[in-house]
Amino acid sequence: MNKKVAIIMGSTSDLPVMQDAIDVLKELNIEIEVDVVSAHRTPEKMFQFGTTAHENGIAVIIAGAGGAAHLPGMVASLSPLPVIGVPVKSSNSIDGWDSVLSILQMPGGVPVATVALNGAKNAGILAAQIIGATQHDVRDRIITYKEGLKEKVHRAASEMKYD
Amino acid sequence: MNKKVAIIMGSTSDLPVMQDAIDVLKELNIEIEVDVVSAHRTPEKMFQFGTTAHENGIAVIIAGAGGAAHLPGMVASLSPLPVIGVPVKSSNSIDGWDSVLSILQMPGGVPVATVALNGAKNAGILAAQIIGATQHDVRDRIITYKEGLKEKVHRAASEMKYD
Amino acid sequence: MNKKVAIIMGSTSDLPVMQDAIDVLKELNIEIEVDVVSAHRTPEKMFQFGTTAHENGIAVIIAGAGGAAHLPGMVASLSPLPVIGVPVKSSNSIDGWDSVLSILQMPGGVPVATVALNGAKNAGILAAQIIGATQHDVRDRIITYKEGLKEKVHRAASEMKYD
Amino acid sequence: MNKKVAIIMGSTSDLPVMQDAIDVLKELNIEIEVDVVSAHRTPEKMFQFGTTAHENGIAVIIAGAGGAAHLPGMVASLSPLPVIGVPVKSSNSIDGWDSVLSILQMPGGVPVATVALNGAKNAGILAAQIIGATQHDVRDRIITYKEGLKEKVHRAASEMKYD
Amino acid sequence: MNKKVAIIMGSTSDLPVMQDAIDVLKELNIEIEVDVVSAHRTPEKMFQFGTTAHENGIAVIIAGAGGAAHLPGMVASLSPLPVIGVPVKSSNSIDGWDSVLSILQMPGGVPVATVALNGAKNAGILAAQIIGATQHDVRDRIITYKEGLKEKVHRAASEMKYD
Amino acid sequence: MNKKVAIIMGSTSDLPVMQDAIDVLKELNIEIEVDVVSAHRTPEKMFQFGTTAHENGIAVIIAGAGGAAHLPGMVASLSPLPVIGVPVKSSNSIDGWDSVLSILQMPGGVPVATVALNGAKNAGILAAQIIGATQHDVRDRIITYKEGLKEKVHRAASEMKYD
Amino acid sequence: MNKKVAIIMGSTSDLPVMQDAIDVLKELNIEIEVDVVSAHRTPEKMFQFGTTAHENGIAVIIAGAGGAAHLPGMVASLSPLPVIGVPVKSSNSIDGWDSVLSILQMPGGVPVATVALNGAKNAGILAAQIIGATQHDVRDRIITYKEGLKEKVHRAASEMKYD
Amino acid sequence: MNKKVAIIMGSTSDLPVMQDAIDVLKELNIEIEVDVVSAHRTPEKMFQFGTTAHENGIAVIIAGAGGAAHLPGMVASLSPLPVIGVPVKSSNSIDGWDSVLSILQMPGGVPVATVALNGAKNAGILAAQIIGATQHDVRDRIITYKEGLKEKVHRAASEMKYD
Repeated sequence: MNKKVAIIMGSTSDLPVMQDAIDVLKELNIEIEVDVVSAHRTPEKMFQFGTTAHENGIAVIIAGAGGAAHLPGMVASLSPLPVIGVPVKSSNSIDGWDSVLSILQMPGGVPVATVALNGAKNAGILAAQIIGATQHDVRDRIITYKEGLKEKVHRAASEMKYD
Repeated sequence: MNKKVAIIMGSTSDLPVMQDAIDVLKELNIEIEVDVVSAHRTPEKMFQFGTTAHENGIAVIIAGAGGAAHLPGMVASLSPLPVIGVPVKSSNSIDGWDSVLSILQMPGGVPVATVALNGAKNAGILAAQIIGATQHDVRDRIITYKEGLKEKVHRAASEMKYD
Repeated sequence: MNKKVAIIMGSTSDLPVMQDAIDVLKELNIEIEVDVVSAHRTPEKMFQFGTTAHENGIAVIIAGAGGAAHLPGMVASLSPLPVIGVPVKSSNSIDGWDSVLSILQMPGGVPVATVALNGAKNAGILAAQIIGATQHDVRDRIITYKEGLKEKVHRAASEMKYD
Repeated sequence: MNKKVAIIMGSTSDLPVMQDAIDVLKELNIEIEVDVVSAHRTPEKMFQFGTTAHENGIAVIIAGAGGAAHLPGMVASLSPLPVIGVPVKSSNSIDGWDSVLSILQMPGGVPVATVALNGAKNAGILAAQIIGATQHDVRDRIITYKEGLKEKVHRAASEMKYD
Repeated sequence: MNKKVAIIMGSTSDLPVMQDAIDVLKELNIEIEVDVVSAHRTPEKMFQFGTTAHENGIAVIIAGAGGAAHLPGMVASLSPLPVIGVPVKSSNSIDGWDSVLSILQMPGGVPVATVALNGAKNAGILAAQIIGATQHDVRDRIITYKEGLKEKVHRAASEMKYD
Repeated sequence: MNKKVAIIMGSTSDLPVMQDAIDVLKELNIEIEVDVVSAHRTPEKMFQFGTTAHENGIAVIIAGAGGAAHLPGMVASLSPLPVIGVPVKSSNSIDGWDSVLSILQMPGGVPVATVALNGAKNAGILAAQIIGATQHDVRDRIITYKEGLKEKVHRAASEMKYD
Repeated sequence: MNKKVAIIMGSTSDLPVMQDAIDVLKELNIEIEVDVVSAHRTPEKMFQFGTTAHENGIAVIIAGAGGAAHLPGMVASLSPLPVIGVPVKSSNSIDGWDSVLSILQMPGGVPVATVALNGAKNAGILAAQIIGATQHDVRDRIITYKEGLKEKVHRAASEMKYD
Repeated sequence: MNKKVAIIMGSTSDLPVMQDAIDVLKELNIEIEVDVVSAHRTPEKMFQFGTTAHENGIAVIIAGAGGAAHLPGMVASLSPLPVIGVPVKSSNSIDGWDSVLSILQMPGGVPVATVALNGAKNAGILAAQIIGATQHDVRDRIITYKEGLKEKVHRAASEMKYD
């Protein structure tokens, strides 16, 4: 059975940012499931999700949230799986600093793998890399993906126009 | 029956800061209970505490935590009671900014009454003021307490020496 | 007699932000009064308000202000009531940091219950929770209100569409 | 009658910083008076001071405070005199940012002449310059003072040793 | 002879901000002169201005600049007059922090009276207060001006509409 | 063959921080290799390491660095493996902000799984979780490890003393 | 043979900012070459460029990048030439702080000459000054260029209109 | 005649930091001259120095200063030579941010080549690289110097001990 990546977010308003994770994981042919789970408004659902994810075929969790973003850290507290946190620059955020620090600065014992502000694309790639750490077919897709990035830059460089 | 204030903290290392809340509430003759509850290491205990506190004679919750401080916000998510958050400048904190922003920047619907960095004394006074909002004997003790502050300043002013 | 919540703000330009507090308190069926009180331009009115609020049937004060926001802290200095401060991201603010720090970092003895930047909605909910700390009919309305939040998230989750 | 400079501070714990203002004003032969006035703990004294200072022979007010520093701004609200604010890096401050922003970011209509963090010496010099703006004997002392600074640097430069 | 206030700025692009100082000083009936003086592009003009201003009937200097704003501090270095610095949030500024810190954090011996980011209006009022420190007709105009502010707030409060 | 975790750091002065990763991985019985690789002083060694790590039995890379910390991001650029970045608060750092932002804010396509400032312990746990994402014996050790954390908190709570 | 300045950038999206360097170097009649080199997506090209630039007639390298900007520092690591870093405020940047700190805070031994956020124009002028440090015809063009700046300010000052 | 590097600083208290520039330039066999020049206390000396340095055999200027650090930018305004700015974390600095921003954020037309906070060593190396941009014997010494750095890291790596 293939391992899945779960993508959860604190609010549907985070979807425009989190869509990048969905897209890149589809491009890398990784199975996903997506849900809205709010640490502050649906704590029971979060508990249920966090304590059972590893029993439901999920290998990696991506959690996006903004402001005082508690979802990634709380899920990391509840699950033995690696949790990737995406700080979302939501409308009520102080320039994103609150989102970043609330996710990054976890205490010893409970890591969250934090990516850049609004960096959902990188969260997707990192999830694939985590699966690829032991599954070499996935790793090979990562290698191919990065080759594609390189080629885009080379092409852009050759086509760049300036006066 | 008198209403109690619960004082919880994420780690025993927060006690030197949180002791100020204990002291001032004792001085104001408010009943307290104190416990260590970690959002990240004892999430089940936190859930149990948060969902039942209002049924156990508690009127106000004071929660102190540092770094990516999720305890105050998670308890506020679980309880209908007013929750006062004390950002603790713990050793792994980035100058306290992470503690402050993780507690202050709660999303709409789930407030945390945040006090200053390491401001446990003010958390205690605020808890007493909250009880005093409807219990006038407590409010009178607040008025007396603030008179005392005033007198200390007047005395200090009259004794101040400079060249 | 029912306890009232006073909502004051430093300028009429703060009203679009502070309206959220008005709305949520009406929704929770709490009696309010609203006024403009400027710490810097009408200090006498502020003194009058702060020293008498607790004698006028007010249980909680919500004060919103931006920039070097002195209104919440000064009212907290003058009144024995719990004061909730709303940092407003006004046009002359440095990304809201000045508003947040001027309200949050009160000295020992004079707490302000600070909510998130522009977090007037949470100020309203917190005021209701403060009254509900001792009045159980209000607390029950808070419980119902939070159930509503939960249901909105569940519904949004079930309706979310992504590709 | 000579004009006086009033030096007030929120707490006697600010005196080690504010002493620099006292020293430089004595050196410049300006008459001073010094007091402790707390915006948050002695608001009535602050009102009394602020509304009457200009009638008591005071020409300039220097006010030092830390954290959510409201003293300079409130005195500026109450007095027609120029008010110089000294942000003090007190023990409960977040690296001084709260003190600086609470004093600097005053709303339109109520200026505070802010100097550097812990910059009480410059507050004293600025007070002398303000008096010297219209009293030329004081201005001449400023000119002499600055000549002295220059000479100290020249001497230090000529004596500097390095390998 | 009446004392003048000089208003200088680092670039004509600062004029929309600095116009507020011009307007309020005219309203307060203080004589002004206005010029563009760039610390970095016209250093000789700056030297000439700074070293002679006090001999040309100028009592107070207002200097506005953005980014690494050196104009207020350099003029303060060259002149015995009180210098008011206006940090301008120019297009190349990092959210105004560079402008604020470059003007505020002057070394001991050379004060700049710093006002809020883009706070040119307050710079004008402060300049008038400085002249009013010793000229009571000007001080009376300040008192009248502040009464006007108060009345505007009272009127706005009485007219405020909310649902 | 068991998968290894490589722990590299920019300087031997980072070892006191990075030792926590070594310790926790040993405790979790994960094979490690440790080396000093400087992005800025040994770029060839970094290239050699980054491009070949996945062919040498390494599944996860932990890279710690301070200041303008380029090692984690450059290794992430060169390797298809998941790279965990540890921002180190080195002596030349601006309160750790440079280390954090240089590691966290990677561009789309090249993720670094960033942990808290000086959070090497969490980097080790995260590396084990990554291996455990597909190897269930490792995941079981994570579950046991987290149980241990919980018990320590419960014990500390029961033994906590306060007055 | 005339010395050239190489202008490289991490992405074609940096070109609108970096164009200012191209323009001013053309105005100063310095030979340039321009390319896109990404530290994270084309590391081999970066290595090739960095290790050979000094053998290809290049005297100074200007490198612009945003976010976790590693290009300037890595090129400085690989080349003995002076490297000028331009922090670009890219769309994924946290207000430019990440770009600035990732370029500025290089460790001892590997300097990057950092200019202001988006300061590509100054990067170009600095490159010319570096060549002019030993080639006096270039220095003379710098002197003429700065005279032009001065004249523009004088003209703007004489034409400025205000009410 | 060999080109010299001038090292100037705003105060003798900056010497402990600036000594690193002196040391590395001696090690690289570059001729230096050292002086104390204060933008704020000795502006005439600064003008004299800045306008004549290029006529006195100086090729590069290194200027160190702290707080509202105006020396590097003002000298860059006065001289056609490349100016390297060293932000010094002086005792009155706000964590070094003021020093960094006052030097880095220069307006278009007047660059300062800024190095890391307290990065005087890198200022020295950069000055040598600037001379080496056109003098190949100096560039060769840079290449040798960097080889030495590399070897130190390799040796440290081989000798590193951990448990």
